[in-house]
Amino acid sequence: MKKQKTAITPIREENYPEWYQQVIKAADLAEHSPVRGCMVIKPWGYAIWENIQRILDRKFKELGHENAYFPLFIPLSYMQREAKHVEGFATECAVVTHHRLEKNKEGELVPAGPLEEPLIVRPTSEMMVGEMFSKWIESYRDLPILMNQWSNIVRWEMRTRLFLRTTEILWQEGHTAHATKEEAEDHTRLMLDTYVDFIETYLAVPLIKGIKTETEKFPGADSTYTFEAMMQDGKALQAGTSHFLGQNFSKAGNITFRDQEGKEQFAWTTSWGVTTRLIGALIMTHSDDDGLVLPPRIASSQIVLIPIVHKPEMEEEIFSYCDNLAKELRTLDYAGTKLNVRVDKRDIRGGAKVWDWVKKGVPIRIEIGPKEIQENRLSVTKRTRGHREFFHQSKEELLKTVISQLEEMQQELFDSAKAFRDRNTFKIDTKEDFYAFFKDNKYPHGFALCHFSEDPKVEEQVQKDLNVTVRCVPLDAPVEEGKCVISGEKSMRRVIFARSY
Amino acid sequence: MKKQKTAITPIREENYPEWYQQVIKAADLAEHSPVRGCMVIKPWGYAIWENIQRILDRKFKELGHENAYFPLFIPLSYMQREAKHVEGFATECAVVTHHRLEKNKEGELVPAGPLEEPLIVRPTSEMMVGEMFSKWIESYRDLPILMNQWSNIVRWEMRTRLFLRTTEILWQEGHTAHATKEEAEDHTRLMLDTYVDFIETYLAVPLIKGIKTETEKFPGADSTYTFEAMMQDGKALQAGTSHFLGQNFSKAGNITFRDQEGKEQFAWTTSWGVTTRLIGALIMTHSDDDGLVLPPRIASSQIVLIPIVHKPEMEEEIFSYCDNLAKELRTLDYAGTKLNVRVDKRDIRGGAKVWDWVKKGVPIRIEIGPKEIQENRLSVTKRTRGHREFFHQSKEELLKTVISQLEEMQQELFDSAKAFRDRNTFKIDTKEDFYAFFKDNKYPHGFALCHFSEDPKVEEQVQKDLNVTVRCVPLDAPVEEGKCVISGEKSMRRVIFARSY
Repeated sequence: MKKQKTAITPIREENYPEWYQQVIKAADLAEHSPVRGCMVIKPWGYAIWENIQRILDRKFKELGHENAYFPLFIPLSYMQREAKHVEGFATECAVVTHHRLEKNKEGELVPAGPLEEPLIVRPTSEMMVGEMFSKWIESYRDLPILMNQWSNIVRWEMRTRLFLRTTEILWQEGHTAHATKEEAEDHTRLMLDTYVDFIETYLAVPLIKGIKTETEKFPGADSTYTFEAMMQDGKALQAGTSHFLGQNFSKAGNITFRDQEGKEQFAWTTSWGVTTRLIGALIMTHSDDDGLVLPPRIASSQIVLIPIVHKPEMEEEIFSYCDNLAKELRTLDYAGTKLNVRVDKRDIRGGAKVWDWVKKGVPIRIEIGPKEIQENRLSVTKRTRGHREFFHQSKEELLKTVISQLEEMQQELFDSAKAFRDRNTFKIDTKEDFYAFFKDNKYPHGFALCHFSEDPKVEEQVQKDLNVTVRCVPLDAPVEEGKCVISGEKSMRRVIFARSY
Repeated sequence: MKKQKTAITPIREENYPEWYQQVIKAADLAEHSPVRGCMVIKPWGYAIWENIQRILDRKFKELGHENAYFPLFIPLSYMQREAKHVEGFATECAVVTHHRLEKNKEGELVPAGPLEEPLIVRPTSEMMVGEMFSKWIESYRDLPILMNQWSNIVRWEMRTRLFLRTTEILWQEGHTAHATKEEAEDHTRLMLDTYVDFIETYLAVPLIKGIKTETEKFPGADSTYTFEAMMQDGKALQAGTSHFLGQNFSKAGNITFRDQEGKEQFAWTTSWGVTTRLIGALIMTHSDDDGLVLPPRIASSQIVLIPIVHKPEMEEEIFSYCDNLAKELRTLDYAGTKLNVRVDKRDIRGGAKVWDWVKKGVPIRIEIGPKEIQENRLSVTKRTRGHREFFHQSKEELLKTVISQLEEMQQELFDSAKAFRDRNTFKIDTKEDFYAFFKDNKYPHGFALCHFSEDPKVEEQVQKDLNVTVRCVPLDAPVEEGKCVISGEKSMRRVIFARSY
């Protein structure tokens, strides 16, 4: 069979990691900056992040959270207050040690003004938020405190990959404090559900809700809830986390309150966050060998109108038709705002223009020339159906049906990703099969649903042997008596083993 | 005369800087963090910033700008590419020198993993943006590039003050590149006008548009446009700037393009920004001795409903009346979004509640008890009229007139600030009067409109003698022959001299 020409080289099957980089480049989403591990997010990528922010922010506020802003820097001594926490981040901290530059004898600018205490560029803000909470909270009347911030964090990663693992990360971090353990645990799960609902509904990425094992949980948390997605190469991606911190951080930072009996108590805290990594999840879940595929509800733009001008004297009429149609489309409500519609008037070849938008993953593309206008017969192409297939609609039909068409595409993307995940999830019951499964280099790989007795030594072993980890203990895993696939120890439910990003 | 009791101590006349700190504290806008010079912006303050972001962001996009994100860190060598630029920022740079922590022999955590090249936490992003522009721009077809980013920057300030001068600053920075000098200059002024229109219309802060002298302009700019406001102590505050960078940064960063004749040319660039300092300007322009006064269009909330519950059995009815009224009010369009309305159900004394909202500056306060409900006669208080004066309105009247009432308040605040500024601006024509004016310790002080021949030595002298600077050469200053108030040299127009924040 003749190999079909694709916009992206290599294709997914040939080299999935390289395909991922090429999709990002072809869609002009982001690129590496000259600073190791830091990326520049370009407008077509940043617009996705703005949509994520807009929708999540509204959800957080509906649940009673307020936004605030905490400092970029954390004094070294604060990081040390919680032993596991600092241990978890010590190997990846950007450290500020000086506060000015001066010329040395050779006339070179060098760091000067050494700080008495080094500052850590925040890898997360539990310590700083906790310090402020301890000042703000006096009595049970001050609880709960429900806060969120949108900010940047820095985790010094040795191997970085655009969106998935970067040194500087854009994210939101929620921090809450509660009077009771139960309320804090409920809130941790509420935020887990909020994230999962958002990501499945808007990013069309199906998720498995679960809890992390002791080995994999957040440094300092009592428990970490996670939501894991399967990428098209069968690897897992942790899309975000929600942590029940117990009283660990309130004990480390002295966050106390007087209860109704006037007794001093430690508060119960939570934290939860998602990052620009979600954009990586989006890309790797839906895109194909022709480039990016964007779920309509989160797309930077839902529709692009491409004027086809063969004769210069027709330009004005065609442009004005497109502008008017765009204007009408932009009045339509969609995904909590209005439809975002572009008209591509660039002076370049039509074919190049079309490929540009295919690679950029815009959900609906409409080409408009004199014939289409005259016959009121627009030529509509859906990105989810490849780049060739199109159908005709009158302008009136388009305006009437476009929202439901986009919603259909949204659902198709979710269904197809879910079917893919289900197809590539396998129950494995022997150590032999387990090793064979993960040693096989097939594409895609997938998840192994196996019994596991929660022995950290098993995790250590499969990580060493196969680079495989327990992604999570799924919350909806049925109780089912069995034996750990590796150790043979008694187990009560299956967990997900996989390679991961 | 008996001194009236005020919510804020000291009052403005007694100690303006301390009054400012106390207003911020009483309104719960922000506070100092344990990191020197870095503040925590609390929800009532951050909501103002969110409104600023929302409105400005829409304006920028309407003008064709796209948002993007550039790295937090800038390699030291990049900063050095433009001599004046690095000189301007060298004394206030936070420098990252290490990328992890490790335990020393004493078991203390210390910085480890020294970086080959130190990284500067961005004080501004011309260098990084320029580096990317130089990669993205090839031909005149790629121009103009119109970009903006919302981010944090760090400038290590020795003396800091909440919102006005902090080490970490939240801001937006716009960066554009153009094919011609004229287009870049026009864009610089377009952004100046955009800022001024926004700040006058939404923050009700009257501004003077002007150009900075050589002494005061941005390090590396050809010219810096500024917009200056007068605070209630008569000092000037630079509310933001728009820089025409000429070809300085394109020469430093090699931002070139092929023009229509195929000739390689350096691009012309601009940059422009405003920061959370705008919140400081807002506070110092409108607030009074009872605390914050918020212009309705930018207020965190426009209206607070305070249920007055004397008998517990009435609580449900009163709360539900308030909730319903809030719901109706929230359907009303205002300032590009919907009215933001709060119901204060806290279980604290009514008097304490009222004072809370006075100090927080919420524009309209409505107290609602059983009598008000029964008689359909709400008691409405406007923050701009002090805290005692109220009037009665039926619910229907309120819903019908509330938007125009808010708009009236908005206009009153602007008019009153403008009248204040005009009252406190003086034409001064002799050196003797100039020195007498600025040596006098009267409150408020004010602006001196004086002839000035643009001799930097004069600026140096009045700064040294009086701590006074040229705030700007106003763009609308009429051409008028005269002599420099200090040197007696020939001058063609008056400039603004003042003390400043």
